[in-house]
Amino acid sequence: MAPSAINFADKLGRFAEHWSPRVVAEMNDYQFKLVKIQGEFVWHSHADTDETFIVLAGTLRMGFRDREVVLNSGEMIVVPRGVEHCPRADAECHVLLVEPRGVVNTGDAGGALTARNDVWV
Amino acid sequence: MAPSAINFADKLGRFAEHWSPRVVAEMNDYQFKLVKIQGEFVWHSHADTDETFIVLAGTLRMGFRDREVVLNSGEMIVVPRGVEHCPRADAECHVLLVEPRGVVNTGDAGGALTARNDVWV
Repeated sequence: MAPSAINFADKLGRFAEHWSPRVVAEMNDYQFKLVKIQGEFVWHSHADTDETFIVLAGTLRMGFRDREVVLNSGEMIVVPRGVEHCPRADAECHVLLVEPRGVVNTGDAGGALTARNDVWV
Repeated sequence: MAPSAINFADKLGRFAEHWSPRVVAEMNDYQFKLVKIQGEFVWHSHADTDETFIVLAGTLRMGFRDREVVLNSGEMIVVPRGVEHCPRADAECHVLLVEPRGVVNTGDAGGALTARNDVWV
């Protein structure tokens, strides 16, 4: 049976919370998650996996310990495993995350911004 | 060291061939590939993996045996392993593919449209 198309604008219209990734699709043991970003996150890393950020709208500022990488709509970045990073956005920014199922958004840092996993929209 | 941003428009400007995926990034053992699609591909399936198509520009018509799914910019679809599909586009369409390293574009079908793998841009 044919799978369905997933429309990002439609999915993004169904939630408002920042830093709260929503799963929209799975591919093998990977997930695609939409997240709305505004303000500054926490410095963290993921020991076991790379993590991909695809910017759909707005400007994402990805902090690394040696420099900041600015990403606009139509740009992506792969954060290698073990590399500390801290996403932030001055204005609301929409991002498509791609990462293995089970990755916790705050990685090794934990804390108040840790989101519940496997929340679909 | 900080990874770099990948700009889709920049990468898309570096090749013109249709049905010839170019790798732009790797995440663990997965690859992100840009591909320009026009005309009709071949019916095929991938026995061992799901395959993700994210439409960046234009309209992708994904044929399945029971129906066709039309995808525009800002939409994605995950084709499950083993499911026959046939992508086509009336006008040139730009797609970001996400799939494990080593997946051959024509899957079980082979033939003239089979592209060389691991060609980066």
